[in-house]
Amino acid sequence: MLLRIDHVGIACHNLEEKIEFYETTFGLTVVSREVNEEQGVREAMLHVADAPSGASYVQLLEPLHPDTAVGKFLAKRGEGVHHIGYGVADVTQALQDIAAKGIKLIDERPRHGSMGASIAFLHPKDVGGVLTELVETARH
Amino acid sequence: MLLRIDHVGIACHNLEEKIEFYETTFGLTVVSREVNEEQGVREAMLHVADAPSGASYVQLLEPLHPDTAVGKFLAKRGEGVHHIGYGVADVTQALQDIAAKGIKLIDERPRHGSMGASIAFLHPKDVGGVLTELVETARH
Repeated sequence: MLLRIDHVGIACHNLEEKIEFYETTFGLTVVSREVNEEQGVREAMLHVADAPSGASYVQLLEPLHPDTAVGKFLAKRGEGVHHIGYGVADVTQALQDIAAKGIKLIDERPRHGSMGASIAFLHPKDVGGVLTELVETARH
Repeated sequence: MLLRIDHVGIACHNLEEKIEFYETTFGLTVVSREVNEEQGVREAMLHVADAPSGASYVQLLEPLHPDTAVGKFLAKRGEGVHHIGYGVADVTQALQDIAAKGIKLIDERPRHGSMGASIAFLHPKDVGGVLTELVETARH
């Protein structure tokens, strides 16, 4: 079901500072910047690698307001890994298959993610404390 | 410098339960089990994908004792993402380059990691709260 580790989602206080850090320390390159009002984040995708099933990224997330999921995460735990995104071929089918196994979903239906992807989150309570995202890359 | 997301390291209380969960929920397959006394963990590598630069994995980590790094992590934060491992071509060179940028290292020299890899950890304080591992895959 999982095609690749699509991205590591990292919560930070200052997006521009953290982008510069990942660029200068690790040589990564920003390939996309977006504001996602629905998720309450300003974000950047930094390209790590390409693979047959799709690329992989470090995703840096800065909350738009303290009263957002990422804002609350920062207040509670500080900066760090917020979630893991795995690539899937068909996110709707994957959600159905996972729900059928009794795993609690955050998103019953896919929603809009980074770079036009269809994404959905699974509840961390049922995935060993890991906020887990499924990512179906946009077709070009 | 970073060739791929090599693995996501996930801390758990019960390795066998969590292996079964990742196998049945996501269809991953265990390719290696090890006990690493130095790091105080019992672990399993579950294969996610292959790519030109190397494979990627979910690494499940159960502490051997409460008084280990992963044991303390579990006591403080509960189950969840413990660290992120990135593939590099030459871990010794990467450590030198990163140290030269003023990033604090946990490991000044590489040590033994999963499946014969040479690995080193960077200090999360200097990497935005992310415990970051560099992985040079064993040559076969």
